[in-house]
Amino acid sequence: MSDSLTQRILGELEALVLIDPHSHINPHSAASTTLADIMGYHYYTELAHSAGLPREQIEESGLDPKEKVGRLVEKLDDLENTAQVSWLLEMCREFFGFEDTAITSGNWEALYDTAAAKMARPEWEEQVLSHSRLEKVFLTNDFDDPLSGFDTNRYIPCLRTDDLVFHFTKPETRERLQKATGSSVMDLPSLRSAIGSLFEHFTKHGARACAISIPPDFAPNREEDSAVVPVLTRVLNDEELSACEAATLSRFVFWTLAEFCSEYKLPFDLMIGVNRRVYESGVFQGQDLFDKRVSLIQYKALFNAFPQVTFPVSVLGQTSNQELVSYAWIFPNVVTNGHWWYSNIPAFIELDCRSRLQAVPKTKQIGYYSDMYKLEFALPKFAMYRRILAKTLANDFVIDRGWSEDRAIALGKLTLRGNVETIFNL
Amino acid sequence: MSDSLTQRILGELEALVLIDPHSHINPHSAASTTLADIMGYHYYTELAHSAGLPREQIEESGLDPKEKVGRLVEKLDDLENTAQVSWLLEMCREFFGFEDTAITSGNWEALYDTAAAKMARPEWEEQVLSHSRLEKVFLTNDFDDPLSGFDTNRYIPCLRTDDLVFHFTKPETRERLQKATGSSVMDLPSLRSAIGSLFEHFTKHGARACAISIPPDFAPNREEDSAVVPVLTRVLNDEELSACEAATLSRFVFWTLAEFCSEYKLPFDLMIGVNRRVYESGVFQGQDLFDKRVSLIQYKALFNAFPQVTFPVSVLGQTSNQELVSYAWIFPNVVTNGHWWYSNIPAFIELDCRSRLQAVPKTKQIGYYSDMYKLEFALPKFAMYRRILAKTLANDFVIDRGWSEDRAIALGKLTLRGNVETIFNL
Amino acid sequence: MSDSLTQRILGELEALVLIDPHSHINPHSAASTTLADIMGYHYYTELAHSAGLPREQIEESGLDPKEKVGRLVEKLDDLENTAQVSWLLEMCREFFGFEDTAITSGNWEALYDTAAAKMARPEWEEQVLSHSRLEKVFLTNDFDDPLSGFDTNRYIPCLRTDDLVFHFTKPETRERLQKATGSSVMDLPSLRSAIGSLFEHFTKHGARACAISIPPDFAPNREEDSAVVPVLTRVLNDEELSACEAATLSRFVFWTLAEFCSEYKLPFDLMIGVNRRVYESGVFQGQDLFDKRVSLIQYKALFNAFPQVTFPVSVLGQTSNQELVSYAWIFPNVVTNGHWWYSNIPAFIELDCRSRLQAVPKTKQIGYYSDMYKLEFALPKFAMYRRILAKTLANDFVIDRGWSEDRAIALGKLTLRGNVETIFNL
Repeated sequence: MSDSLTQRILGELEALVLIDPHSHINPHSAASTTLADIMGYHYYTELAHSAGLPREQIEESGLDPKEKVGRLVEKLDDLENTAQVSWLLEMCREFFGFEDTAITSGNWEALYDTAAAKMARPEWEEQVLSHSRLEKVFLTNDFDDPLSGFDTNRYIPCLRTDDLVFHFTKPETRERLQKATGSSVMDLPSLRSAIGSLFEHFTKHGARACAISIPPDFAPNREEDSAVVPVLTRVLNDEELSACEAATLSRFVFWTLAEFCSEYKLPFDLMIGVNRRVYESGVFQGQDLFDKRVSLIQYKALFNAFPQVTFPVSVLGQTSNQELVSYAWIFPNVVTNGHWWYSNIPAFIELDCRSRLQAVPKTKQIGYYSDMYKLEFALPKFAMYRRILAKTLANDFVIDRGWSEDRAIALGKLTLRGNVETIFNL
Repeated sequence: MSDSLTQRILGELEALVLIDPHSHINPHSAASTTLADIMGYHYYTELAHSAGLPREQIEESGLDPKEKVGRLVEKLDDLENTAQVSWLLEMCREFFGFEDTAITSGNWEALYDTAAAKMARPEWEEQVLSHSRLEKVFLTNDFDDPLSGFDTNRYIPCLRTDDLVFHFTKPETRERLQKATGSSVMDLPSLRSAIGSLFEHFTKHGARACAISIPPDFAPNREEDSAVVPVLTRVLNDEELSACEAATLSRFVFWTLAEFCSEYKLPFDLMIGVNRRVYESGVFQGQDLFDKRVSLIQYKALFNAFPQVTFPVSVLGQTSNQELVSYAWIFPNVVTNGHWWYSNIPAFIELDCRSRLQAVPKTKQIGYYSDMYKLEFALPKFAMYRRILAKTLANDFVIDRGWSEDRAIALGKLTLRGNVETIFNL
Repeated sequence: MSDSLTQRILGELEALVLIDPHSHINPHSAASTTLADIMGYHYYTELAHSAGLPREQIEESGLDPKEKVGRLVEKLDDLENTAQVSWLLEMCREFFGFEDTAITSGNWEALYDTAAAKMARPEWEEQVLSHSRLEKVFLTNDFDDPLSGFDTNRYIPCLRTDDLVFHFTKPETRERLQKATGSSVMDLPSLRSAIGSLFEHFTKHGARACAISIPPDFAPNREEDSAVVPVLTRVLNDEELSACEAATLSRFVFWTLAEFCSEYKLPFDLMIGVNRRVYESGVFQGQDLFDKRVSLIQYKALFNAFPQVTFPVSVLGQTSNQELVSYAWIFPNVVTNGHWWYSNIPAFIELDCRSRLQAVPKTKQIGYYSDMYKLEFALPKFAMYRRILAKTLANDFVIDRGWSEDRAIALGKLTLRGNVETIFNL
């Protein structure tokens, strides 16, 4: 019974048109042009590299896309067990009619060519969106993105702020800021005002969120202006900062962002826990890992200081999930957000999804986002999540708690889409 | 087969009369008088607040109980998915014959009135106990509780010591201690003797446990008298202590409690990992959270120093469960105790229950306690736990290990009740 | 369907002949001679002690093996729920035809005598290996083991290095090193050379791995010779080191081991996270526990510095599993290795096994090792793991992902045996 029940619930969830609340889509080139765009996703390059393919072969300069795919295909068998490769196969089945059980040296070229032909059609982007039942997609925009030349109603801007918070010490960041805002930072007031004008620019262009990814050891706290001024002065004089000074500046910029989120009524997506460049010889975007010794208690001051700002929180470590559940259960402004990166595999999603549904108000849960770089990925990623969600709704709600199927389906739809609309004011 | 097997095991576990080894019941007013006593439980107020109900509306001074329930009912739909609301519905079904699938603005008043009428009957308390198959309930008594005016055979006193360990620096704590013991603390010997007289008082009145909740950063170690004397002198002179001095004093009082637990043969319940007042604008009792970066290694000295004291240990974080399992597997004096607070939802209980049953001697596991403030909560909370326990016994023991049903049921009864009797010397 | 599917997959996995990649077997006395060899395993003595059996009764000097078993049997009922006791029963069933559901005061003597008779036969060792389908077993050899007098093709040497890294400060360690290498350590070059000659000796005798267990607070980093020289001088003068100096020396020795692993092409097994002697009154080998606050980020420098060395990593804490999955997903030289000690119970293995199969390249997973001290343990331990593996392959791969049974079985066999052969160059 459980199986057919799950299937019925899944069917209803699959009918829902989605809004993807976090991606890295380039709106000027949202869909793939060859299979290399798909298999060049760091999930495949880093796994192939991890399984033994030298970085030089993957990232050879001037490498032809088809040749790149051919090289990656050689390693696919070693990765066949991964959830990531199951996404790849599902994309190929759904979009290109691929019917084999694996992509091999014997069949990849035909697949490549079929994909290239389909992708070359002008309607490809529309077809992907429509076949994926995807209506809107949130972006991850650099703070100096002009946000022009694309439909911001479909591709919703989001102000990504890692560079401002963690790389303001780099001259190129400050130059980009100056260019973007048309005014230069000379002191604290002008820094604040520059940041404010980014919010003005972004919200004017339909931005619905501010976002940042944060290393495990960062603890956002309010800094006194008097502590920041001398540090900022040193930065502006191109002097080297100590780690402690750099952290002071990071906290100041971060806090200022939160203040503007409050003023501009933007949710502030926190993606907590990533250490950058842990494996420096890794492939592009395949170098980051984490330290699970992080706690949301580090965000105590922030969550208390900004009751009017909604914080959709993603945690990189599965061991952080219970803290997230508990903080969202207590703090009105903390919302659970998706299943991020190293936690985005079924074994972890299951426990995380179940515990959130059992303990966090249903209106405070954003079920899933794709984190994708190319449009084709929304389909298999959301599909993976929906299957787990359907199973959880069937077992924990219909069977264990005696809910009607309709009620369970409504809960699923709320976390899949309804909450995205309300939380991000769509 | 698994389903009917689970049901048969569950039936046997449900027939068992329970002893609840940890609650916050007020023995002078154990049962509820209106639905507001139930829905005023912090699990509901904090979730309603988290879902958007202003604290002022929940905690308005002089608020009529019925009006309070009406306000909370407005938010119940947002919380319908939570395990906590499933307890509420189960209480209403079991105690008040409520048959709807949700408490709504349309049906709550009738429910409120039905409940009030039932609760007004003189036999209500007995009825709740009997319907819940509850024989004895452990209390959480302030150290200066006179412990008089109630049946200590049914409501078993427990000496709660948070104030002594963590708030001895407050003048009111010391005044309460002076009043309770009839002698004033002037130095280390008189402090020791005052604490000793609390143990005398409590054990004379049938206390079966000493208990404390502990923040994640506390590490109990033995302090030399010579280190404590100057700190105590400063406290008694009403001088402010440094954080370091306060910790020294806390460790001293804690260690002294353990010494008296040994002398008076009282188990010492440790509830490890709570940070108080993390969300200061939260509702009453809805302000505490945690930092998962805690380890039982912090208790190494304690567990080694007091082999004759049994420590039933509760951990707030689910990520601490494996340490608890491992420490109970090795240390004869460490016992696993229930599923506490943020870990008390099915998704976490399942893994924790399974791992304990697979690795800790069966005599060293206290399956569950209610942590309740009002008697009515024992029924749905123990019911939730029993369902998980029955499923675990069916799958892991009868099916996977070929145990007979009777043997599995006996194991379940041992952790549900038998161990409570032996561990607390009832 | 799921059940019979699992059984079919399990049947295929059971047919596979195994190589056990980590044990503590004494190759000169690999199998047990009485039941005391089995029940004297620390898993039983520590659990019996934890359940109340005094250490003095277990470790009484000159205690007759049969009397020892008799004493432990008295406590077995208290432990009947544990996975460990399920191994014991499975061994007795499989090897001695024991048919009762428990070992009791009424039946243990007959069992003891039957076992002793079987074990006394000259072919016992061969029978155990053959009945367990065990072809080769990795050892854990002290660095000064002569490695002679046994078949190193069946019992594969492994250079265990805890003493060198963490106890080089002890004169007896240095004496053993001098004796083993025939030359004395007088300075850094001679220390390096002594370590090198251990690798020469071990690899000449067929060693296939270097191994070490590591406390949670250790972070291997490269030390400058100039920092090590004064510390080494103090050690060689029998002076006491500070904790900081001792750590410097440990890091130096550790790093030197890694250098020789690279030179001799030996995988370096890291068993991360154990605190030794936490419970000092515990039974032999039943004193160690852990601090879950450890991160693989502590190994960043090591994993980056030695891309040519394969690191099969075991983690003691289940909460470290996701880090292990993620680091193995990114670092080509990090391999997941088995389910160690406190993580070696079904509830934890299930989640860990599933997540590894879903996210780590299939060629980089060593499914299981026995960690056994006596040959008879391989059978029930591998059996436990295989059942979980078969269930995971059935549910996550055949049912959820539509794999053929053959494909799922091939994956299972790869992690059970194939990878052991490739990773350890057998």
